[in-house]
Amino acid sequence: MSLLDRTLKDIFPQDSDFRDRAKERLDQLAMPHWALGDLMDLAIDLAGMTHSMAPPVAKKAIITMAGDHGVVAEGVSKFPQEVTPQMVYNFVNGGAGINALARQAGADVVVVDMGVAADLNDLAREGKIINKKVGLGTDNIARGPAMSNAMAIRSIESGIDIANELAGRVDVFGTGDMGIGNTTPSTAIAAVITGKSVEELTGRGTGLDDEQLEHKQEVIKKILACNKPDPKNGIDILAKVGGFEIGGIAGLILGAAALKKPVVVDGFISTAGALIAIAIEPFVRDYIICAHRSMEPGHRYMQEKIGCRPLLDMNLRLGEGTGAALAMNLVEAAVAVLTEVATFEEAAVAGSDK
Amino acid sequence: MSLLDRTLKDIFPQDSDFRDRAKERLDQLAMPHWALGDLMDLAIDLAGMTHSMAPPVAKKAIITMAGDHGVVAEGVSKFPQEVTPQMVYNFVNGGAGINALARQAGADVVVVDMGVAADLNDLAREGKIINKKVGLGTDNIARGPAMSNAMAIRSIESGIDIANELAGRVDVFGTGDMGIGNTTPSTAIAAVITGKSVEELTGRGTGLDDEQLEHKQEVIKKILACNKPDPKNGIDILAKVGGFEIGGIAGLILGAAALKKPVVVDGFISTAGALIAIAIEPFVRDYIICAHRSMEPGHRYMQEKIGCRPLLDMNLRLGEGTGAALAMNLVEAAVAVLTEVATFEEAAVAGSDK
Repeated sequence: MSLLDRTLKDIFPQDSDFRDRAKERLDQLAMPHWALGDLMDLAIDLAGMTHSMAPPVAKKAIITMAGDHGVVAEGVSKFPQEVTPQMVYNFVNGGAGINALARQAGADVVVVDMGVAADLNDLAREGKIINKKVGLGTDNIARGPAMSNAMAIRSIESGIDIANELAGRVDVFGTGDMGIGNTTPSTAIAAVITGKSVEELTGRGTGLDDEQLEHKQEVIKKILACNKPDPKNGIDILAKVGGFEIGGIAGLILGAAALKKPVVVDGFISTAGALIAIAIEPFVRDYIICAHRSMEPGHRYMQEKIGCRPLLDMNLRLGEGTGAALAMNLVEAAVAVLTEVATFEEAAVAGSDK
Repeated sequence: MSLLDRTLKDIFPQDSDFRDRAKERLDQLAMPHWALGDLMDLAIDLAGMTHSMAPPVAKKAIITMAGDHGVVAEGVSKFPQEVTPQMVYNFVNGGAGINALARQAGADVVVVDMGVAADLNDLAREGKIINKKVGLGTDNIARGPAMSNAMAIRSIESGIDIANELAGRVDVFGTGDMGIGNTTPSTAIAAVITGKSVEELTGRGTGLDDEQLEHKQEVIKKILACNKPDPKNGIDILAKVGGFEIGGIAGLILGAAALKKPVVVDGFISTAGALIAIAIEPFVRDYIICAHRSMEPGHRYMQEKIGCRPLLDMNLRLGEGTGAALAMNLVEAAVAVLTEVATFEEAAVAGSDK
């Protein structure tokens, strides 16, 4: 049996017994009923995911997956492709947004080369990044598929590998991405899976003007018309209109779920990865925490499709895992509510006259 | 000159030079322009407040102010008044929501008796709370003023005292409250200052049903009709329809602003305190960070009046400073963006083709 198939066999819904036990305790905390709102809902989810009344969350890591995209030849991004490897060096040197926010949240940053169009062997040899390179960037999806089916499976299995390799040192995974041009494949994935129009879904990515936005919409329509991915087949969608880092993110999410570990999904590109993962195995959504609502207009529809209310809404549009890092604090806070707050009885506080 | 008058003389708008310098650096960070959205806006504010390109935020404290309210005699709360001192003991014992969330955020919790209707001298003697008791609960505002003008000023000056006494060990203040019945005076303050109707503003507090909610609205109308506070006079509003802990919060905010320190304002009751502070000195709003949007319907209108977009929206309605504690992580994150992220030039990353 393949790694992917074995992993899928290990993904189950959240445990309803631990959900019930968590709810029972939270119902009794010395405060007006459910006064910590969404944090309490999150605490129930964490108990259900981890089968624990004290969900382990101390060890946190953001896995930032990098890959390049042949579709940049169509002029869909304002930044040149060389920025992808340059940003990988920036991650390794600790100078990027994700480094600052992960430090604040007490999370490690693990950088993975899923398919950067540059030689990063020096960084891999020094152990500064993990090398899972599937190719030197995807093919141009405006002219054909991004990659073969075998490469799509390999990118997903690489993400599963990462989850398994890090399992001993990570309680909570966060997803992250780097890849010039990757809002284009992500928007294509969103269009296939949500059924919304390209106009509703397409945003300005790293800062397109009106004319450039219109051009990007035309390119995405061309991508969909030329590739015709099967909306029910996650691997087909990934192979035809996806990306190596998007496959890696999908695999990381599947791997985390099989390990019964929560995975905090970052912004637009990460959510495209989550949609692929859910298309492959719907139960995986029970392990997904949506970090934030990004500025990309399609993100709302993607999160609605997942059925997940984001924790934060701060007009972020960076990716890298930055929103996931911010949300890690809220995950810890939810566990603190479940494990550290006294009940009415424990605190000897009078209840309400119901 | 009184402490209040001296404090007001020390409150100035944010420094525009430091705001400009922060914006200039953030504009150059190696990421798409303003890709960390609201965090970057917050970073500018923090630079402007603290006159620093590395705003100090390591030392954080939530000041939880407790007080009782004579208006509970009107049956506006589901919880008995004895819960106020019981919760003070819970804070001191570390078992409340605020203790758990402040620990997660690395913030101290400082509990202040502003006017609890119980003898808490034992806790004050042991140094576990700060005693600033103005009275044993306010008078019933459905029948007359909450307190005298002198007591209103004393409660505000007590909050200023707290800010000054803690100045050496606190970089960022967070506000918090505890007081059975205190959504009623807070709603009355909101009605006076926002001009919105009692129906638009009044919520279910700690969990009222429809009939109880209607009763609470009637009580608030009676409060406004019987006291007729002057909408332009913060001290008059506080004296007539406020509370001791609300005055303490207003004073803490004024004190923090005079010290050029940011103050993270928690939920509905804390925002009533902020409205009083702003009515007294409008420049104080430059030092206010709105932590979250609470479930109380009036909160939105109060935050609009302040002109402040809340950082979080998680259906919280606990008070105690819990939302402020959660937001402390975002304040730290904003500073990390300003101080730890490299520019395009520093990181040797190519810019966009504009």
